[in-house]
Amino acid sequence: MSYFNDIEKIKPYIHQTPVLTSTLLNEIAGCELYFKCENFQKMGAFKMRGATYAILNLSEEQRAKGVVTHSSGNFAQAVSLAAKSLGVKAYIVMPTSAPQVKKEAVIGYGGELIECEPTLQARERTASKIAQEKGATFLHPSDNLDVIIGQGTAAVELLQEYTDLDTIVTPVGGGGLIAGTVLAANAFSEKCEVIGGEPFAVDDAYRSLLSGKIETNTTIRTIADGLKTQLGEINFPIIKKHIKTIIRVEEDEIVAAMKLIWERLKIVIEPSSAVAFAAVLKDKTRFKNKKVGVIFSGGNVDLSRLPF
Amino acid sequence: MSYFNDIEKIKPYIHQTPVLTSTLLNEIAGCELYFKCENFQKMGAFKMRGATYAILNLSEEQRAKGVVTHSSGNFAQAVSLAAKSLGVKAYIVMPTSAPQVKKEAVIGYGGELIECEPTLQARERTASKIAQEKGATFLHPSDNLDVIIGQGTAAVELLQEYTDLDTIVTPVGGGGLIAGTVLAANAFSEKCEVIGGEPFAVDDAYRSLLSGKIETNTTIRTIADGLKTQLGEINFPIIKKHIKTIIRVEEDEIVAAMKLIWERLKIVIEPSSAVAFAAVLKDKTRFKNKKVGVIFSGGNVDLSRLPF
Repeated sequence: MSYFNDIEKIKPYIHQTPVLTSTLLNEIAGCELYFKCENFQKMGAFKMRGATYAILNLSEEQRAKGVVTHSSGNFAQAVSLAAKSLGVKAYIVMPTSAPQVKKEAVIGYGGELIECEPTLQARERTASKIAQEKGATFLHPSDNLDVIIGQGTAAVELLQEYTDLDTIVTPVGGGGLIAGTVLAANAFSEKCEVIGGEPFAVDDAYRSLLSGKIETNTTIRTIADGLKTQLGEINFPIIKKHIKTIIRVEEDEIVAAMKLIWERLKIVIEPSSAVAFAAVLKDKTRFKNKKVGVIFSGGNVDLSRLPF
Repeated sequence: MSYFNDIEKIKPYIHQTPVLTSTLLNEIAGCELYFKCENFQKMGAFKMRGATYAILNLSEEQRAKGVVTHSSGNFAQAVSLAAKSLGVKAYIVMPTSAPQVKKEAVIGYGGELIECEPTLQARERTASKIAQEKGATFLHPSDNLDVIIGQGTAAVELLQEYTDLDTIVTPVGGGGLIAGTVLAANAFSEKCEVIGGEPFAVDDAYRSLLSGKIETNTTIRTIADGLKTQLGEINFPIIKKHIKTIIRVEEDEIVAAMKLIWERLKIVIEPSSAVAFAAVLKDKTRFKNKKVGVIFSGGNVDLSRLPF
């Protein structure tokens, strides 16, 4: 049995994103790179996949009552747009501190914005209240099996296009992308290993693999704003079982990798995306002459606040 | 007889660039937009096409003696890389004031850099001296029929992929791109009109169409650094005969158009590219519900000096 038996149903609602290559970047990295460009995904990030797949898997009754999530980032926009595409009501809880541009994006995509205090507790409490009052189904951004499988469809497409990849590297934040990616690699490849990239500043996943339990971050001072979250009860067992390596990168390495992609591929990726590429550059020996897929998670950046 | 009979020969040396579309940008512009992405071209700009085609059309004897050009911009890099691909020596005259990154790019692509005083006279004199001493063939960035035809191949690809475009909009600088584009439109379409976009600050082409002779710019204060040059003796007659409309745009309109493309298409385009899109937004009535090709000329920007 495969987790991916009925993933075809998301196709009408998402983009099959392109895979870019660059001779020059291959020379710099010392391996063959295949960049899966989820920055070109609808609403600008892979999160559209998980949100869409999770909503598609709800019953008619659930769909009628809507969905609710709390997120300060891409998942808020993803649920708003996916819900709109599927005719479902979306309640989005965001901290008052979230950037105005993200709030406007949620509203623009048709989500109902509910603001709360900028603490995880307040977010969870507010979302829980809406779930109870409205009967809306709560969708966790990364710790939900349907969301995880949906995120894995980026790797499915990548492996269907390039069947002999040795490795796929993804950024690690809440754990949904890497968990979905490794499930996809196990289902669609005999040999493809999945490796994570994570900022030193928020290396909870790295430490969780070492300790065997879900670790948290004491600070969240990283430019990779999508990777500040920790692993969850559903995705951690998958990650613990299948992921052997998480490569940690410094902040300046993230910025340098991001700049290299903007300059050479001429595409806009967000810092979290650059973490996966930075991980390849950090550990060139490991990847030498291999065929390496890199998942660019998204391209939603505030152009007025660039790090270069 | 078509100018484009033997353009197939450039194919091994250039990228067939993708054409991007966006539902959201179509809604904003009120027409169907087809963005031809020469920012993804080798060395990051359409100039690679003209340089390659011009060098391919030299005799064996000419090729043996090399080529020379003067440019502070993309054409310097284009000639360097095209010459290298074809095993031809390239002498590149650049003003001492040119950005270090551009000088390094020329050297990186294998061109021989010759620096001169930052005046047009010094550039022309230096290039002319090298042409005499080395027997190298001078290649003008825009006022050379082979270069013009080479630049036109971007529009040829666009019209082969989208056969029923009503209009193609290009930026206008030295005139090579728009002249090549209109020759291509005349050869490959029954109806496609070509329109230029030009910054108000350097509207020499707009004024040249009005006066019927080549006008110059008294100032060059525009962010669109590729569009500061004036039309030439070879391309102006083509432009005068076939181009009816040049739409002028303000500097803030260029920046806004550039930002919209970066944010929504998630691609890096240079300000000169944004001028063509800004022209569409400036005159929405003209383009209403039409199928409009927009040529993004390139993506070479200094990320440390962005206008937003």
